[in-house]
Amino acid sequence: MYDNIRVVMVNTTHPGNIGSAARAMKTMGLGRLYLVDPKTFPSEEAVWLASGAVDVLENATVVKTLKEAVSDCGLVVGTSARLRRIPWPVFEPRRCGEVVTAESQRNEVAIVFGREAMGLSNEELQMCNFHVNIPGNPEYEVLNVAAAIQLICYEVRMAHLELERAGETSQENTIPIEWIRWDEPIASHDEVEKFHDHLTEVLLELEFFDPDNPKQVLTRLKRLFNRSRMDKTELNIMRGVLSRIQAMLRGERPSPKKPKGGIPE
Amino acid sequence: MYDNIRVVMVNTTHPGNIGSAARAMKTMGLGRLYLVDPKTFPSEEAVWLASGAVDVLENATVVKTLKEAVSDCGLVVGTSARLRRIPWPVFEPRRCGEVVTAESQRNEVAIVFGREAMGLSNEELQMCNFHVNIPGNPEYEVLNVAAAIQLICYEVRMAHLELERAGETSQENTIPIEWIRWDEPIASHDEVEKFHDHLTEVLLELEFFDPDNPKQVLTRLKRLFNRSRMDKTELNIMRGVLSRIQAMLRGERPSPKKPKGGIPE
Repeated sequence: MYDNIRVVMVNTTHPGNIGSAARAMKTMGLGRLYLVDPKTFPSEEAVWLASGAVDVLENATVVKTLKEAVSDCGLVVGTSARLRRIPWPVFEPRRCGEVVTAESQRNEVAIVFGREAMGLSNEELQMCNFHVNIPGNPEYEVLNVAAAIQLICYEVRMAHLELERAGETSQENTIPIEWIRWDEPIASHDEVEKFHDHLTEVLLELEFFDPDNPKQVLTRLKRLFNRSRMDKTELNIMRGVLSRIQAMLRGERPSPKKPKGGIPE
Repeated sequence: MYDNIRVVMVNTTHPGNIGSAARAMKTMGLGRLYLVDPKTFPSEEAVWLASGAVDVLENATVVKTLKEAVSDCGLVVGTSARLRRIPWPVFEPRRCGEVVTAESQRNEVAIVFGREAMGLSNEELQMCNFHVNIPGNPEYEVLNVAAAIQLICYEVRMAHLELERAGETSQENTIPIEWIRWDEPIASHDEVEKFHDHLTEVLLELEFFDPDNPKQVLTRLKRLFNRSRMDKTELNIMRGVLSRIQAMLRGERPSPKKPKGGIPE
């Protein structure tokens, strides 16, 4: 479902790139553009470069923060040119297209592109379940942002076409096995963020941090749980565990009859 | 052999597109650009849009006719948006990348791109061994020429990388791309099992289970962490958290100087 896929551009400086991105998206059948705090929008230059895709610009959603742009999404993919100190799961564009396509059958999906000069920040990348990296020329890897959008949207389209073609015979093989027939709906980005906040709070109460270096532990736990892509039930269980820890630390004993953290039958 | 592959642009009108094309080529490792009777070249706008790929512009070959541009080539591929009255062999970009890559081991190969407004003429297309068609949105198929070059060059690069990887070891294909270049070794099955035992123990101490139905919670948590494929450091952090919870439940206060669960720097 192309309709469940949004392209998110963060802090775009040149309005021409927004126009070119809209055109690139539409040629590949995608139409939902989110702009996080763009420098100039709307603009004549964007309209000029959008060519026949002005409708994508007109329907674009402008928001203040990346969080607003992705909060209702079940899958958030971030584009990343560099390798990170703490590596995240990284897909190549083709695999990204397959995963995004499979996922979009059920969930809202965001593909996030960074600033022209410096891409996405570490903090922004840590909000993502996966990263996608275009394996470019190591000596000159800097794709224009609209060119990167063209390329990723192309792979999404190819995966869609693959699925349509396979649809007549056997769908099963084209959908990554790990995302099909799941029993519970996926947790939203917002719910996962709240879980991370709760986890941080509990780790503080447990005095678990190395006070001199709290960030690496938190980053590694963020990576672990973001990559797991918790469903709502799993997330509720984990939240229940955290609440129970807090209650126990305060000296409360739970009633054994009806545990707070248990999941309903 | 990237060196045997040339990109040919026919009668380009906007010099900016020549610059963007040079950039697109270089990001994918290609460097040989032929310009057939361009309207404006050289130009400042092309240099501006080429960004770090000015060398591709400087080394570009300007010729009068398409014939001159491709005369020494063993394979000529033409890009075509429309279906022709007399159908030619048409490949999708992926297959095109594979064929161009295989052919470039032995021969000079040209990939030919047409004018912004009207593509290649029938006569020009008939000079080609086969055509490549980007399967875009039927309602809006008009890719910018530099975007089309980006995309075709990307598929050439992917085919090259595929070949390189296949050449190294046949194992590579079996390793999911997302786990290579990970910073930490993966946890062993045994370590993960011990983690699950520890987690169960702590959940019991927390009286977290629904005593009538403990299994579903445990099963779901097992699924969650097994699917994450924890590395050793992540597993150690999680084990540290569990130990800390147990210590706190026993009323021990940890020394803030050297937290047991912290990871070494």
